[in-house]
Amino acid sequence: MDDVLDSLTRQLRQFAQQRNWEQFHSPKNLASALSVEAAELLEHFQWLTEEQSRNLDAATREAVGQEIADVLLYLLQLADKLGLDVAREAQNKLALNAIKHPPLPPA
Amino acid sequence: MDDVLDSLTRQLRQFAQQRNWEQFHSPKNLASALSVEAAELLEHFQWLTEEQSRNLDAATREAVGQEIADVLLYLLQLADKLGLDVAREAQNKLALNAIKHPPLPPA
Amino acid sequence: MDDVLDSLTRQLRQFAQQRNWEQFHSPKNLASALSVEAAELLEHFQWLTEEQSRNLDAATREAVGQEIADVLLYLLQLADKLGLDVAREAQNKLALNAIKHPPLPPA
Amino acid sequence: MDDVLDSLTRQLRQFAQQRNWEQFHSPKNLASALSVEAAELLEHFQWLTEEQSRNLDAATREAVGQEIADVLLYLLQLADKLGLDVAREAQNKLALNAIKHPPLPPA
Repeated sequence: MDDVLDSLTRQLRQFAQQRNWEQFHSPKNLASALSVEAAELLEHFQWLTEEQSRNLDAATREAVGQEIADVLLYLLQLADKLGLDVAREAQNKLALNAIKHPPLPPA
Repeated sequence: MDDVLDSLTRQLRQFAQQRNWEQFHSPKNLASALSVEAAELLEHFQWLTEEQSRNLDAATREAVGQEIADVLLYLLQLADKLGLDVAREAQNKLALNAIKHPPLPPA
Repeated sequence: MDDVLDSLTRQLRQFAQQRNWEQFHSPKNLASALSVEAAELLEHFQWLTEEQSRNLDAATREAVGQEIADVLLYLLQLADKLGLDVAREAQNKLALNAIKHPPLPPA
Repeated sequence: MDDVLDSLTRQLRQFAQQRNWEQFHSPKNLASALSVEAAELLEHFQWLTEEQSRNLDAATREAVGQEIADVLLYLLQLADKLGLDVAREAQNKLALNAIKHPPLPPA
């Protein structure tokens, strides 16, 4: 596991313990919470044009940053409960995607 | 930016370039794709009890690992387009959460 | 089209026209908004047990009712933009589901 | 309750009974399934431009119709479990929205 992700995961474990939230953090519930946070992220973009989404104002960009954080924090907690290493899973998936979608030939 | 996340981000940039997919990767579209992947992750859990979700069979656990990877890969691409550092955003959000939700007092 | 759904659809058309919101209501955007509302609905249930979800308090039940309404309102607007009749689509899908999932034999 | 929605609701009840699926249909689970179906609907639009989403080819439009149906079918089942009338909820929400967002004055 990557050092920063490992550090975040350890902090999240402690955070849940100190608030007695572990009882709520079944993988099923964490997957729901992750999906809800992903939708809160999407909400910032739903009425924007693609062009506008490439040029967010500072306040929206900051709010989006917080939603991105929420998604990552639930993703790490879910992976932790399942004993999965998100960085390794991502690296493996990239390798699978490269096989599934070969690069375009040079023009 | 963390080394592993930085490495994944660089690979994702190259992956999109080599397939001429950058035209599709507006922040708006990446936020939609992220939300769709989060729902594909949730789909594995929707009919399970919380207890069953804590004891996935090997095939489901592997499939869930791939969905977790997909979520992270879109999250990194979205953050990259917006010039945001996901690890730093997550660290900042944890600090905000600690203020918003103080730990329980010792029993 | 069913009378009540037809009436709601006509009211929604007028509502959007009177606010000059039609410019935002591409099918792509309406599908995003629908997904966001479905997640807001899910948010009410994410930390509840299944048993608790069967026994909502009055305030949560009312809030859930409003989210259910939001989902239906976007669903009707999306179907209207695409020239689809949601009641007929639902009836057809039920028939497909009955073929795909035959009923259990009598015990 | 509206006749068509009432008829669909009665058919859905029987459908679940005949397959012994009622055990899975807690409001919590139905809300998850609804959110997953809404994302499957969104998936058809995620890489389209808004303009392309207004001009779906026949195959995509048919697939979208089926996803719209799935959303309505889970919405009706969820409302049924909670004793809510979706058409009435939608009508009430429209009235609330009209107060929250007054129409534009005539130009």
